Amino acid sequence: MTIKVAVVGAAGRMGATVCEAVEAAEDMELTARLDAGDPILSESLGGADVAVEFSVPSASEANTLAILEAGADAVVGTTGWTEESLGRVRETAERLGRSAVIAPNYALSAVLVMSFAEKAAPYFESVEVLEMHHPNKVDAPSGTAISTASRIAKARAEAGVPAGPDATQTDPDGARGARIDGVNVHAVRLRGLNAHEQVMLGNPGEQLVIRQDSFDRSSFMPGVLLAVRSVRGRGGLTWGLDSIMGL
Amino acid sequence: MTIKVAVVGAAGRMGATVCEAVEAAEDMELTARLDAGDPILSESLGGADVAVEFSVPSASEANTLAILEAGADAVVGTTGWTEESLGRVRETAERLGRSAVIAPNYALSAVLVMSFAEKAAPYFESVEVLEMHHPNKVDAPSGTAISTASRIAKARAEAGVPAGPDATQTDPDGARGARIDGVNVHAVRLRGLNAHEQVMLGNPGEQLVIRQDSFDRSSFMPGVLLAVRSVRGRGGLTWGLDSIMGL
Amino acid sequence: MTIKVAVVGAAGRMGATVCEAVEAAEDMELTARLDAGDPILSESLGGADVAVEFSVPSASEANTLAILEAGADAVVGTTGWTEESLGRVRETAERLGRSAVIAPNYALSAVLVMSFAEKAAPYFESVEVLEMHHPNKVDAPSGTAISTASRIAKARAEAGVPAGPDATQTDPDGARGARIDGVNVHAVRLRGLNAHEQVMLGNPGEQLVIRQDSFDRSSFMPGVLLAVRSVRGRGGLTWGLDSIMGL
Amino acid sequence: MTIKVAVVGAAGRMGATVCEAVEAAEDMELTARLDAGDPILSESLGGADVAVEFSVPSASEANTLAILEAGADAVVGTTGWTEESLGRVRETAERLGRSAVIAPNYALSAVLVMSFAEKAAPYFESVEVLEMHHPNKVDAPSGTAISTASRIAKARAEAGVPAGPDATQTDPDGARGARIDGVNVHAVRLRGLNAHEQVMLGNPGEQLVIRQDSFDRSSFMPGVLLAVRSVRGRGGLTWGLDSIMGL
Repeated sequence: MTIKVAVVGAAGRMGATVCEAVEAAEDMELTARLDAGDPILSESLGGADVAVEFSVPSASEANTLAILEAGADAVVGTTGWTEESLGRVRETAERLGRSAVIAPNYALSAVLVMSFAEKAAPYFESVEVLEMHHPNKVDAPSGTAISTASRIAKARAEAGVPAGPDATQTDPDGARGARIDGVNVHAVRLRGLNAHEQVMLGNPGEQLVIRQDSFDRSSFMPGVLLAVRSVRGRGGLTWGLDSIMGL
Repeated sequence: MTIKVAVVGAAGRMGATVCEAVEAAEDMELTARLDAGDPILSESLGGADVAVEFSVPSASEANTLAILEAGADAVVGTTGWTEESLGRVRETAERLGRSAVIAPNYALSAVLVMSFAEKAAPYFESVEVLEMHHPNKVDAPSGTAISTASRIAKARAEAGVPAGPDATQTDPDGARGARIDGVNVHAVRLRGLNAHEQVMLGNPGEQLVIRQDSFDRSSFMPGVLLAVRSVRGRGGLTWGLDSIMGL
Repeated sequence: MTIKVAVVGAAGRMGATVCEAVEAAEDMELTARLDAGDPILSESLGGADVAVEFSVPSASEANTLAILEAGADAVVGTTGWTEESLGRVRETAERLGRSAVIAPNYALSAVLVMSFAEKAAPYFESVEVLEMHHPNKVDAPSGTAISTASRIAKARAEAGVPAGPDATQTDPDGARGARIDGVNVHAVRLRGLNAHEQVMLGNPGEQLVIRQDSFDRSSFMPGVLLAVRSVRGRGGLTWGLDSIMGL
Repeated sequence: MTIKVAVVGAAGRMGATVCEAVEAAEDMELTARLDAGDPILSESLGGADVAVEFSVPSASEANTLAILEAGADAVVGTTGWTEESLGRVRETAERLGRSAVIAPNYALSAVLVMSFAEKAAPYFESVEVLEMHHPNKVDAPSGTAISTASRIAKARAEAGVPAGPDATQTDPDGARGARIDGVNVHAVRLRGLNAHEQVMLGNPGEQLVIRQDSFDRSSFMPGVLLAVRSVRGRGGLTWGLDSIMGL
């Protein structure tokens, strides 16, 4: 059974890549490409079962609500959501009997690194996070690394694991990096790289390294398609891909 | 509350390392060191709650049954178990109301790599396994790598994922390595290494790498101590650390 | 002083990327784009100082000779050269007082990995080569890996270093990979990867790993531009970038 | 021809490891083990051709001068040398027609990483250094990492290469690490690790990674033995293993 898919924000770089991925998927049909200014209605979506939304933070909530009102389920990749915005999407989806998936990261490898790091962290004495990006990135560390460190810290706190050992006494230039919730985070910027994250965990005599590489925009497509195939019938709001992936 | 621990096979290299680890653990007391020829009885175990068994395959089943009969729970690290042997340990433990943990690998990082690889494998087009060991190892690939590949293959088959893409037409010298249940496995032998495994998974635009390093024998101790702390009250036989670790 | 550069094979994927790189370089001017069938003459090259040739093996020697005859130096990226073809280019360049650079690989990182591996190999007991590519590649191992292994083997032989230790007795499925001149070579094929090579060297207690990643075609451009800037006045034929890079 | 070797500081951990390595080497004979307080004379050195010195910074210069006066060549692993101390060793060696090798690091892999990083650095837009150590280390970054960054910076300055690109605008917690001579250096501390260094270099579309692992003290032995075999006849002072290794 073919899933009818519309793309909102189809003129953007991510939106255009989603259009290509949907057209290449054997079980999907692209019914509409909408851009800024196009009305979001049942007709303009071409009778889509699911609409994928990649626009800008200032437009994303209104677009998502309109998608649900138009009778489609929503898969949203735009970032910058607040708890309040998410609450309004949840309420609208529940009221209308529709479903929305909103995820901060559609790279399956990134979702898995965070989940695996969280699961492994209570079993190791030491854990540190290294993120590597292209040198045009303006913020350090990356949002994904902050989120990873926070989830690691929470998992260790819940398991009663103490902070990792660190005898550092002199570090005049800050080589030990940032501490996010007690977890050291390091940011590398290198021409040629795109977006990469590595979590290192250590015990006496052993090390566990979990690493992901997003080489380009296409890395988000397997996650977007997975959400499109899974959104139907979930009901209300699903935040992140973890529950869809059984993590 | 202190756990009383006996070690069977205490003169061996692994057994000696276990004795050290038990003595260093604040919540444990070493009650006895037994070697080949020593009778395994309640008295000779020093009233141990748990006996850790690291001997040789030819002695391990008899030792484990004797531990259970002597009124202790068993944590067993010797390899080479058959289904029949495991069945006899399960029956004995259940009949006596005791518990046994038998694991093919006590390195937490190795257990996690296998479990994570299994969970991730259905979400990626490609997956290959690389194991690296010291050059004195006589078999290739390692048992852990074979087990990892089998679990990956099973998880992909159950999820209906096809074999990974591979256009190789000419490979006169076998550079593509072994195929274990359809998963390519590569074995590196290098002076200076001990035991290391790396699983690589690929999708369009992204890669996930899960790697573990066992630098020396001490890498097994966190897993042995975890089993000692968890065996009590589990009942019957627990195979591997996965369920103990909530994997 | 601006270098005038023509591109022969400008309609191909590599050629088109070279055109972009030349246009983006502040010290270069793109004077002509030639394709299959276009005559290669001083006028058609637009008075170029240097012509970059990326065509097909069947055309490359004739193109290169024509470039030299037309009064330009040549930088050639097409593969598949024989000793005889290289000899004719050398003779022609020397006769005309021109220079040609022909390299089997223009990725600087790949050139460096081979050179560094060769320099390091005599100092380590063990060395193995791992190459990783996209799954559409038809041959294994890669030409670069074969070349790397051969150079390693030669350097070790010249230094009187024995073969690396390897106690493998059972390897029923070929996990130990290919042996190229006595050096084990492993080939991984993974969706999402492009072209990557890793050389691992081991001694008691230490490991050296030299790795390069070519994420896409643009990885060849720094090497092509380096050759364009260096070819003038070298005289005759320069094979590979090693001598240009002082390796 | 067997080389007669004495060890000064034989009771220390490094000294004891050197004694084992010398005894295991087929081309060497251990003639004496000297410790703090033992006089260093031709007789007490047992007629050694070469004396290996691993003591403490406060004793090392006096020991080295005494070794040279006693008629042996010196291979020195103690750290903490000043230019003045080195000058006195050089003068003494030259005056007596003897030779001394003093190296800040005898791990061949570490020596090679520094040399290769220096050679590669001018060819890449970006370069960063990552060092990883056991968590008992009191200083960050490591001396080796500082030295590596300095050599990289010097090589780039001499080649006229500008600083690497970095658009970072917000980094409130210092995730970008230390800047040593304009090169970012990151320090990881992880239980289970010993001493590891990784240099990452990036260009458009490509990356070069040079990494070394010192798993334990034995990693210094191949370098010490190389120096023992090479010191004879060099004359004066040789600083570091680079020139011995032809780097």
